[in-house]
Amino acid sequence: MAAAEGVSLPTPTEEMNGAGTLMDFLDEPFPDVGTYEDFHTIDWLREKSRDTDRHRKITSKSKESIWELIKSLLDAWSGWVVMLLIGLLSGSLAGVIDLAVDWMTDLKEGVCLSAFWYSHEQCCWTSNQTTFADRDKCPQWQKWAELMTGHAEGAGAYLLNYFLYILWALLFSFLAVSLVRVFAPYACGSGIPEIKTILSGFIIRGYLGKWTLLIKTVTLVLAVSSGLSLGKEGPLVHVACCCGNLFCSLFSKYSKNEGKRREVLSAAAAAGVSVAFGAPIGGVLFSLEEVSYYFPLKTLWRSFFAALVAAFTLRSINPFGNSRLVLFYVEYHTPWYMAELVPFILLGVFGGLWGTLFIRANIAWCRRRKTTQLGKYPVLEVIIVTGITALLAYPNPYTRRSTSELISELFNDCGALESSQLCDYYNNPNMSRPVDDIPDRPAGPGVYNAMWQLTLALIFKIVITIFTFGMKIPSGLFIPSMAVGAIAGRIVGIAVEQMAYHHHDWIIFKNWCRPGADCVTPGLYAMVGAAACLGGVTRMTVSLVVIMFELTGGLEYIVPLMAAAVTSKWVADAFGKEGIYESHIQLNGYPYLDVRDEFTHRTLATDVMRPRRNDPPLAVLTQDSTTVEDVETLIKDTDYNGFPVVVSRESERLIGFVQRRDLTLAIKNARQKQDGVVSSSVVYFTEDAPQLPASNPQPLKLRRVLNLSPFTVTDHTPMETVVDIFRKLGLRQCLVTRSGRLLGIITKKDVLRHMAQMMNQDPESIMFN
Amino acid sequence: MAAAEGVSLPTPTEEMNGAGTLMDFLDEPFPDVGTYEDFHTIDWLREKSRDTDRHRKITSKSKESIWELIKSLLDAWSGWVVMLLIGLLSGSLAGVIDLAVDWMTDLKEGVCLSAFWYSHEQCCWTSNQTTFADRDKCPQWQKWAELMTGHAEGAGAYLLNYFLYILWALLFSFLAVSLVRVFAPYACGSGIPEIKTILSGFIIRGYLGKWTLLIKTVTLVLAVSSGLSLGKEGPLVHVACCCGNLFCSLFSKYSKNEGKRREVLSAAAAAGVSVAFGAPIGGVLFSLEEVSYYFPLKTLWRSFFAALVAAFTLRSINPFGNSRLVLFYVEYHTPWYMAELVPFILLGVFGGLWGTLFIRANIAWCRRRKTTQLGKYPVLEVIIVTGITALLAYPNPYTRRSTSELISELFNDCGALESSQLCDYYNNPNMSRPVDDIPDRPAGPGVYNAMWQLTLALIFKIVITIFTFGMKIPSGLFIPSMAVGAIAGRIVGIAVEQMAYHHHDWIIFKNWCRPGADCVTPGLYAMVGAAACLGGVTRMTVSLVVIMFELTGGLEYIVPLMAAAVTSKWVADAFGKEGIYESHIQLNGYPYLDVRDEFTHRTLATDVMRPRRNDPPLAVLTQDSTTVEDVETLIKDTDYNGFPVVVSRESERLIGFVQRRDLTLAIKNARQKQDGVVSSSVVYFTEDAPQLPASNPQPLKLRRVLNLSPFTVTDHTPMETVVDIFRKLGLRQCLVTRSGRLLGIITKKDVLRHMAQMMNQDPESIMFN
Repeated sequence: MAAAEGVSLPTPTEEMNGAGTLMDFLDEPFPDVGTYEDFHTIDWLREKSRDTDRHRKITSKSKESIWELIKSLLDAWSGWVVMLLIGLLSGSLAGVIDLAVDWMTDLKEGVCLSAFWYSHEQCCWTSNQTTFADRDKCPQWQKWAELMTGHAEGAGAYLLNYFLYILWALLFSFLAVSLVRVFAPYACGSGIPEIKTILSGFIIRGYLGKWTLLIKTVTLVLAVSSGLSLGKEGPLVHVACCCGNLFCSLFSKYSKNEGKRREVLSAAAAAGVSVAFGAPIGGVLFSLEEVSYYFPLKTLWRSFFAALVAAFTLRSINPFGNSRLVLFYVEYHTPWYMAELVPFILLGVFGGLWGTLFIRANIAWCRRRKTTQLGKYPVLEVIIVTGITALLAYPNPYTRRSTSELISELFNDCGALESSQLCDYYNNPNMSRPVDDIPDRPAGPGVYNAMWQLTLALIFKIVITIFTFGMKIPSGLFIPSMAVGAIAGRIVGIAVEQMAYHHHDWIIFKNWCRPGADCVTPGLYAMVGAAACLGGVTRMTVSLVVIMFELTGGLEYIVPLMAAAVTSKWVADAFGKEGIYESHIQLNGYPYLDVRDEFTHRTLATDVMRPRRNDPPLAVLTQDSTTVEDVETLIKDTDYNGFPVVVSRESERLIGFVQRRDLTLAIKNARQKQDGVVSSSVVYFTEDAPQLPASNPQPLKLRRVLNLSPFTVTDHTPMETVVDIFRKLGLRQCLVTRSGRLLGIITKKDVLRHMAQMMNQDPESIMFN
Repeated sequence: MAAAEGVSLPTPTEEMNGAGTLMDFLDEPFPDVGTYEDFHTIDWLREKSRDTDRHRKITSKSKESIWELIKSLLDAWSGWVVMLLIGLLSGSLAGVIDLAVDWMTDLKEGVCLSAFWYSHEQCCWTSNQTTFADRDKCPQWQKWAELMTGHAEGAGAYLLNYFLYILWALLFSFLAVSLVRVFAPYACGSGIPEIKTILSGFIIRGYLGKWTLLIKTVTLVLAVSSGLSLGKEGPLVHVACCCGNLFCSLFSKYSKNEGKRREVLSAAAAAGVSVAFGAPIGGVLFSLEEVSYYFPLKTLWRSFFAALVAAFTLRSINPFGNSRLVLFYVEYHTPWYMAELVPFILLGVFGGLWGTLFIRANIAWCRRRKTTQLGKYPVLEVIIVTGITALLAYPNPYTRRSTSELISELFNDCGALESSQLCDYYNNPNMSRPVDDIPDRPAGPGVYNAMWQLTLALIFKIVITIFTFGMKIPSGLFIPSMAVGAIAGRIVGIAVEQMAYHHHDWIIFKNWCRPGADCVTPGLYAMVGAAACLGGVTRMTVSLVVIMFELTGGLEYIVPLMAAAVTSKWVADAFGKEGIYESHIQLNGYPYLDVRDEFTHRTLATDVMRPRRNDPPLAVLTQDSTTVEDVETLIKDTDYNGFPVVVSRESERLIGFVQRRDLTLAIKNARQKQDGVVSSSVVYFTEDAPQLPASNPQPLKLRRVLNLSPFTVTDHTPMETVVDIFRKLGLRQCLVTRSGRLLGIITKKDVLRHMAQMMNQDPESIMFN
């Protein structure tokens, strides 16, 4: 091997680069080399190396002709094209989903006579027979009872509406769960735990397929419309990732490289959150903080582009009908005061406790579902939960409507024109002030009524969400969590407001709340509560605050939000470090190496590597003394993903690593195409096979499938370093040596098992790798 | 070596963990072990490992007593405390700097009679003898000529004012450069290139010291006030990092660990940008995208906290006098139209070209300064440039004032009450419209006059900035770059506006610009131009758009900004991938391994490692046959940072790596304290030294300073993988083996030199490592 001097470029001889020439040689003969099996982990370094090779080839070719130059430019631009397409499609899908959900949610209560495809709001908006005050009631919109019996009021009409509400809900959820069961089992759940796992380098075939995309989009509409306590935000991330995967297949740059594909998927996740909330920056940070594993700066910029395109596509569809980008647009008119930090922090504590309670209860329930008879009747489960939800939700006006409408109302400040029950305050008739700046007023009976209903709604939401998340339908968690927080926040907000009104003279209010001033904004409390609860469940930090910041559009309220988010995270972390997504990843046993888990135990590579003390010795190949038959026996007898190749069994000096898949394919191919290769042929991994007498069977040269740069650590390497290397370089396995002798192997599975052991968890639950 | 079975925790024997026990053993005897020499690179893995050890120790101790538990909690909270302190101090310093700059900038023109420490604006603001229209002229504020001669008008007064303006400018800049020269040479420049290098793991002692902090703060005020074409934004990042370093020294967690210290510095950089623009989210993204090297998620959240605290501290000082957080607060009243994307993209092209021109010209000039006589007269250079700047700047009203005021005016939309020359339009007296929504009007003579002056200002700024950046005074680049872009943008904006007004019927305007409508906002063009030029120079992407988004506070204008930023980056990248900071890093030869450079050459580790083909063999130690004298000779004869230890020279099997510094200290210590260690003592790196006859000199056991887990790659490893490993793991060096035999070593310096060679650059300019 010639060491190149100075700037001399090395000649690209065939054997120089293990990973590189692997592809050159295998491109044609074995089409499957370089791909991975289902439920296996990818090798990030190898993928990166393959992409560099591809790039190098294109660059060198581009100098040959104009056509190749154009092709190379197209290749360079394909990343942006994919981002544009993802943004357009996921924005459009989000818009369609929003419109459909609006319509179908209202369909449970009634229908628009002028055009049945109009939702309640659209129906009355296009009607010219309504005034602003009566904008909810227009003759074109009829409830089912009115339409069927002609009576809009009365117990009979109420019961009929109640009954039809439940019936529609059951129909929608039955359709949703059936479609998922029959056509795309992967379309259930929020999808974020699986996407995290996929982005960390795991292969789950079909999880991001076209079929999943279609079914998830349809069933998401059905599930949300059925009135179950679930949201569309998480599933939208899954939908956007499916779009990303779909467009990857258009470009071989992405479809043939699992590493590059994951860059696109990271950006797609950002686009998904961007359309879910209308918050592009928050979406990018969510992808960076919560979902992605490998997030280079190039991806950051492209994600931002995709998120913006998606957000603007959604806005041009304008499903929220307010030409605003954001899901919950709010505008507050008064600042917050230092003393209010106390209730904000209390809301943070509540959020943290809710997060802990929810995660524990939900995981316990999901584990029960997995391990008992319960899991065998997913359709029945969905039907029962929907039935109970609809039965309990209808009587309470705050649970009857869709959850996002509820949140929207809770976030809103009471303006002068607000007609909602929550804004039923006694007005001082002598007071004439600008509409925006209404002083604190005593609460009217409507507010007290609303308080009771909200309290019931809070208990209901808390309980039902635990049972809903994890059923076999698409179900997001953001909206229910935010609803719990918003209800709690609004209740606290009204309480503080009334206290401040009635007790100006209390020392805590004296300094900042004069009589007749607008001191307390209950809507802000709702928003802070929502942030706290969402933070407690997901453990998002920066992205949470940024999403909330984008909703309000001003830095004014960032301190309350931050105070609540920090408190909520601290409280929740005190009970357990894992958020809901990590908990579900663990429950499902995905091989996910969390970037955030700090490994602080004092173990060494030698404690983790296989073979253990009493195990049989490591299965190795030798470079020039193994026969084809030996190799085949080894492959048959073991299920390892690859085998180290050593100089000889005595010296145990490592020369490379060969993947099981490549070995199988190469031998199969040689047996078919290469004459003279028989079972007793010797397999050579050396550069040159020796000249053998003609009587010997023809040797099989396999240096080309050998990875000549396997990753090694010494047996004394602390496990914290090994974990770091696995995380940062995205390895599948790592060989352990001492003084140049091969001692053993550590796979990602071994690392995960060891980490689980160190945390005293069930080591058996990790999926085989 | 016992391989622990299952969950059994390994006993923490002394020799188990190279890096860990190194500290245990050396804590007392060699106080310097584990520190680095100046201009050396840190070992990230080792720092991380040391921090884990420290953490482990605290956790295990915390179970012993309440006091230890409290100490461990304090330790866990110290990160947040440091962030809070950084936020408070950097916010306060930024506020003080702003106030001082305001006052001193105005001092060049005149003085406030009622209170000499008032700036012009404060002076007239507190005066009650002025009307709103005349708010710039109040009797309390007197120009120098008026104060001295009693005449406010006339050629004599003008010349006297002119002369005094230049004199003040020269005084300020002379003071600035003298202070830098005498007290803190590191206080010059923007500091961002050096901070990038430091954050990537380089040690530059004193660069972030208290003295640098003090002098940089003072001289920054002087330099900005002198009217030179420079800004305070970059230096503010340096100031914030100095604050971060200062507070690190309060906690041993940070002061004793170079890796942890860099986490704090990353957050401090975010706080610096946050106060520079009043954009906390943009600041965090700037730190992530532009400055930081190792940015774990925990740092993201803490950076955000520090940035927010800093921003709110600054706001409570309220130096901009508008209780707004942001430096340039703008509010536009009309949307943008699709057709306007054409001028926006043209501005992007201009920005890219400006970036390229600036970087090339500035680097050429700085190289000249470095290599010729020019560099020997830094004080004279500053004086001359200040003189020329002041001489040329005074006659033009757009260059006379401070650059940030200029940008602010250019960004502003012309409201009805605007009295500036730029808003001198012919008003249609018949038109009565709300003040906010003024239709496009024909330009008056003031606007045409302003156009000429702006063109001259543009040329002046372009030329003078090239010579200013890099002088021996604190100088930021953001503001001058933005000024160039804002001037160009405003000119284009006014041109488009007038075209649209006079040629409604042109096909390009027909569709979106009716007569009497407000179609074009020239201020928006200025903002887009500023973003494009800043992007061209620094190659910021996401953080740039987010900072601009925070200035406008709405997503409305994000598409124009993004279009310009993308175009500018593409155009500039076409001429050279490096931004101004990377160019300066290269010019200064800092060992900086850029995360963004993609290494695509087909070289292998064997081509890069030393020894090269004709070099003397690698300097190694053997585990049990080297004497103290041999080691001392080796240390004296070579300047390597460390030496591999092998089993024997024949087998060349690697067992570990020992740092030169540790070896020197250990031998020195042993010679002083350990009896019987003489030059002929044998150094043992093995676990147990053999029992020697009493006649032999006492052996020296040095296994404890041996790193038993050195990083190795095989000689066949592609260099792209090696570069990746160096980047992601932050290595100092990596050993190269083949079949278990040690072949050579690759240091970070070798990697950088190889990368430079591959790009055909001067390989000699890289600082020794």
